Amino acid sequence: MPDGTQRTCLIMGAGIGLGSGLARAFAAEGLTVCLARRARNLPELETLAEEVRGTGGTAHAFGVDARDEAEVAALIDRIEADIGPLEVVIFNIGANVRFSIRDTTARVFRKVWEMATFAGFLTGREAARVMVPRGCGTIIFTGATASVRGSAGFAAFASAKHGLRALAQSMARELAPEGVHVVHTVIDGLVDGKFARENFADVAERSAEDRILSPDDIAQSYVALWRQPRSAWTHELDLRPWTETF
Amino acid sequence: MPDGTQRTCLIMGAGIGLGSGLARAFAAEGLTVCLARRARNLPELETLAEEVRGTGGTAHAFGVDARDEAEVAALIDRIEADIGPLEVVIFNIGANVRFSIRDTTARVFRKVWEMATFAGFLTGREAARVMVPRGCGTIIFTGATASVRGSAGFAAFASAKHGLRALAQSMARELAPEGVHVVHTVIDGLVDGKFARENFADVAERSAEDRILSPDDIAQSYVALWRQPRSAWTHELDLRPWTETF
Amino acid sequence: MPDGTQRTCLIMGAGIGLGSGLARAFAAEGLTVCLARRARNLPELETLAEEVRGTGGTAHAFGVDARDEAEVAALIDRIEADIGPLEVVIFNIGANVRFSIRDTTARVFRKVWEMATFAGFLTGREAARVMVPRGCGTIIFTGATASVRGSAGFAAFASAKHGLRALAQSMARELAPEGVHVVHTVIDGLVDGKFARENFADVAERSAEDRILSPDDIAQSYVALWRQPRSAWTHELDLRPWTETF
Amino acid sequence: MPDGTQRTCLIMGAGIGLGSGLARAFAAEGLTVCLARRARNLPELETLAEEVRGTGGTAHAFGVDARDEAEVAALIDRIEADIGPLEVVIFNIGANVRFSIRDTTARVFRKVWEMATFAGFLTGREAARVMVPRGCGTIIFTGATASVRGSAGFAAFASAKHGLRALAQSMARELAPEGVHVVHTVIDGLVDGKFARENFADVAERSAEDRILSPDDIAQSYVALWRQPRSAWTHELDLRPWTETF
Repeated sequence: MPDGTQRTCLIMGAGIGLGSGLARAFAAEGLTVCLARRARNLPELETLAEEVRGTGGTAHAFGVDARDEAEVAALIDRIEADIGPLEVVIFNIGANVRFSIRDTTARVFRKVWEMATFAGFLTGREAARVMVPRGCGTIIFTGATASVRGSAGFAAFASAKHGLRALAQSMARELAPEGVHVVHTVIDGLVDGKFARENFADVAERSAEDRILSPDDIAQSYVALWRQPRSAWTHELDLRPWTETF
Repeated sequence: MPDGTQRTCLIMGAGIGLGSGLARAFAAEGLTVCLARRARNLPELETLAEEVRGTGGTAHAFGVDARDEAEVAALIDRIEADIGPLEVVIFNIGANVRFSIRDTTARVFRKVWEMATFAGFLTGREAARVMVPRGCGTIIFTGATASVRGSAGFAAFASAKHGLRALAQSMARELAPEGVHVVHTVIDGLVDGKFARENFADVAERSAEDRILSPDDIAQSYVALWRQPRSAWTHELDLRPWTETF
Repeated sequence: MPDGTQRTCLIMGAGIGLGSGLARAFAAEGLTVCLARRARNLPELETLAEEVRGTGGTAHAFGVDARDEAEVAALIDRIEADIGPLEVVIFNIGANVRFSIRDTTARVFRKVWEMATFAGFLTGREAARVMVPRGCGTIIFTGATASVRGSAGFAAFASAKHGLRALAQSMARELAPEGVHVVHTVIDGLVDGKFARENFADVAERSAEDRILSPDDIAQSYVALWRQPRSAWTHELDLRPWTETF
Repeated sequence: MPDGTQRTCLIMGAGIGLGSGLARAFAAEGLTVCLARRARNLPELETLAEEVRGTGGTAHAFGVDARDEAEVAALIDRIEADIGPLEVVIFNIGANVRFSIRDTTARVFRKVWEMATFAGFLTGREAARVMVPRGCGTIIFTGATASVRGSAGFAAFASAKHGLRALAQSMARELAPEGVHVVHTVIDGLVDGKFARENFADVAERSAEDRILSPDDIAQSYVALWRQPRSAWTHELDLRPWTETF
């Protein structure tokens, strides 16, 4: 039973893709993993938590609306109070949509930003709130190719992801001298998982040849980032399969 | 009296700094300039329109909330119907604020994005709506150093400006083959004008030595962008005084 | 006859493409244009100088090995002594080659660098030598997409062009406070001219629809850069046809 | 005694700073480390090889002029024939100099390029020659802040380092589909070691607080890059101390 002293890792947007790899990897490192996602996905999240526990790890699932300031703050407070100090916080919420600029509604443009950028701000700020006084901690924001390049059809998504990257970079520059390590990753390519398997026919074949990003392989690089001693910190990292054009 | 056939230029965020230079420059090129700003600043905007008219140009002032989808669409429609086809649309609204990440409220983070990014999206999309069918037009988004670099204390501002730049870049890639020229500028440094004069003691001295961005000089580069034939278009341009560190 | 007081513009690498447009444009602005190229191409260069003179401009052709320190210094000295002070110096030598990395010989790698980078260094340094004491002048380095992006098959060319861009950027940062304006351009796409006409079948058709860079249109942007007052200088500019994918 | 079957790692430019950390780290991973440097530094290199052997690793020291095509090719051939297949090749030669552009001699500009870029090309190409047929291998080029940013006083160094980065990026794009992992690192800050200790007074103090890059800590990130499975490869990585301004 948690007694407020376990080292913990929060994964915001712990879905069925990258989030599951992150959960397994950090649990294997001995951290208590806290998985958070929209309440309606809690059953799926519980399954993942079960899987982690089945391998000897410790995991908790939380329902949260990451765009809600009060909910995010309450979640962080609850983890800190009931489970243990947050050592790693990973913001992993995507919102990939594709519309021509003239077909992009104000509603879509705003919603993509709320999920991909504003929720990242809330998560990052609340993580900073508990980490800065301790003078340590790792915050990782998951980005995409759209974080560094705008493209036809991706005005909303690229705008939001660029916004998240600037947040990460600003936080990295502000918080590094406070001892808090902030990293932005650029995940370039399709990630294996439920979404990929449901939407692409050749995932099994690609997976057999490593031509699709593996959540567990990505997670190893996240673990390596967390392990970096403060004398040699990375602030941005790209990850893609060997066959991905870039 | 306008008869719907004059070539027009809309300046969203026509303030007392860069916007005034743009108004003078495009009016001098023979375009009818439409100046738009929050309704509460209409008197100031009318003064600028008067100044333009005093030099033989044609200018109209409009009050608009650039964050309001219906208001932006209505403004574009009204200009197209009553004044003339929009040949140039410039989005020029800034929202420079500085807060440490932990002191950045959700309200501030959202408001800066609404002004600097969301309003840019509405303006850009509505401009595209009328320009694409005509197969021509120029849309310029005014950026800043924070558009390409996050910094300590500027998480909200850099996030919003990066988002605007990605919007501009995505639109440029999508609309160039439609004949619409979309440009993002990086204005690096203090711009001479009412704000600068009220907040910095040495503006007159800096101005005498060209050590501050002159609205009229910036405007000449905007005019040059608009004049570029489609065989050789620029999509990003930086502008700074000769003495600015970069 | 030159008497050492005419304002002059030197174009290093004044070939049959961009260089000819630059020659026409700066001559039309009233500058004496000095065209420089390998001695073996002097006849071609004389033809261009004739063309410029035929339109009322003043032009001189020089044979020079731009990779030879003494020759470059002597050329600059001769122009300054015999024709007039250099107001604009444009480095315009390309060296586009394509080889897989394993097929790139040391000879090719070195030669591409000598033409595209080392010659640029010699030209830029010698231009700085005469401009800095006068506290004014414009130096423009012509870049390409390979200046900002490495690609398969372009290790030698991209390495050299990145090197030229870093030279331009370093010089811009060092010489701006001295009053010397240094710019790097990114010319993205095929430039119309003898080379293009001999190697691509559809140039006439592309030209008719502006789907190829026009030397005269590019040159107008170089003129605009030179005209920028020092309160608002650009240090990097991209140029591409409206139909170019980027 | 080597029998041509040991997995090997070549470190070109194995000095007394980063190179020593890399030697220790890859030896600890079980690779035979081959240390290469100018012949005149062989005694120093032998001391490092001794140190590695003293900890149970296997190490060889080689004198080589990395700017000499034949010497580099011969070194690679010799290692492959006598020691074992190269699994990791690290190019680690720097050439940091600082001169104003007008004081930068052609000799210096060329020499910096030969050491920092041309030698990198030779090393990278020869590594590709033996790795591509095997469909695997890791090549890491060590970069610096000057690899991504030109600065006043650093025209020669930034030009060379940008050139190295473009080489690395071009090779990465060309060789990834061949199974060869090419990475460029951006080492941002002073690296602890003999050079630092001799030139800066406060190294011990900085080291005690992790305010200087530790060769062993950097090396751990190089090992992590080498360990990345091909489903999730990084192509560029920055490393700096927590207190470094960036």
